[in-house]
Amino acid sequence: MTRRPLDEALREERRRQVLDAALECFRREGFRGASMADICQAARMSPGHLYHYFAGKEAIIEAIAEDDLARRLAEVERAAAAPDVLDALITFGVETRDHATSGGLGGALRAEIAAEASHNPRIAAILTRFHGRLEARLGKVLAAAQRQGQVDPALDPAVLAVVVGLMADGFHARLASEPGLAERERMLAMGAVLRRMLSGR
Amino acid sequence: MTRRPLDEALREERRRQVLDAALECFRREGFRGASMADICQAARMSPGHLYHYFAGKEAIIEAIAEDDLARRLAEVERAAAAPDVLDALITFGVETRDHATSGGLGGALRAEIAAEASHNPRIAAILTRFHGRLEARLGKVLAAAQRQGQVDPALDPAVLAVVVGLMADGFHARLASEPGLAERERMLAMGAVLRRMLSGR
Repeated sequence: MTRRPLDEALREERRRQVLDAALECFRREGFRGASMADICQAARMSPGHLYHYFAGKEAIIEAIAEDDLARRLAEVERAAAAPDVLDALITFGVETRDHATSGGLGGALRAEIAAEASHNPRIAAILTRFHGRLEARLGKVLAAAQRQGQVDPALDPAVLAVVVGLMADGFHARLASEPGLAERERMLAMGAVLRRMLSGR
Repeated sequence: MTRRPLDEALREERRRQVLDAALECFRREGFRGASMADICQAARMSPGHLYHYFAGKEAIIEAIAEDDLARRLAEVERAAAAPDVLDALITFGVETRDHATSGGLGGALRAEIAAEASHNPRIAAILTRFHGRLEARLGKVLAAAQRQGQVDPALDPAVLAVVVGLMADGFHARLASEPGLAERERMLAMGAVLRRMLSGR
């Protein structure tokens, strides 16, 4: 019993090691281009050891998407707890540029995974569940902000959450070709437009 | 002199034949996966003949992007000429679902090209020029609609055009994993939210 927490911590460390190695391989070779052998090599693990943690590339992408979801959900929760929900959401959007290029999924990999989804039903299911959970939570936060008079009462919060989610997706995908879009001045200009559109005032 | 128009028509037909073959290959093998040899075979042309029209895959993607830009610019022009610009833009958005899955670039290929842009400066330049031209024109149309009282006067039309463009990008990318997003009812709900956000009333 006493060794359990340590085992758990070690297991989590190994999982993290695989995920970091996989992200590195996916960025370098593309999702389709990177093989499980490449990932084993980058993680310095034997296939037998690595497969103990992940059954394949889809399972790895699922874990990466889960991490990304957890991070984005945490941002939504922080916005929900802030005095001004819209300001908080937009501030997190502006900060996104920092982890859009470093760590996390990154614009290019996100775009490639989106493309992969069209002919890989398992990836499509992961993304649909991912977007569904994130946008359901964002919809509830927007509805609460609406009751506090911060969001235009004429907007359907559930639909608004999807529209905002699509914009965030488009933003991340665009960064791959146009990193200048994430310059602070342009982010603030987009934030001001979004703020006006969502608040209605 | 008399043969010129026929030559031009024949040349255009051959170019179209290459582009259709390339789209088919890119959809099947991915942009990176498809080779010029695959495209020659699908177009039933010798490499010498095909290279007479296109210098490589980038030139082909450039031509496909130009076609896509021309189609989207034509939609913006039709919206500009309509009595209600927002209604027209949203109607074209709803109709997008029809050519998002058939013909044109398609969500998955768009997403893959976006990913490719992150490590291919020539593709990045094509996309930046493409988005720049489309959004500059859309910005002017939105500014005109603003002068006619159809668009919220507090929104910066140039920034609004980029935000709308990002949303359209996100929509197309999302279709690859979630085709149900293009169901008429959901499109109309998103259109209503957009209409309210853009008009401010």
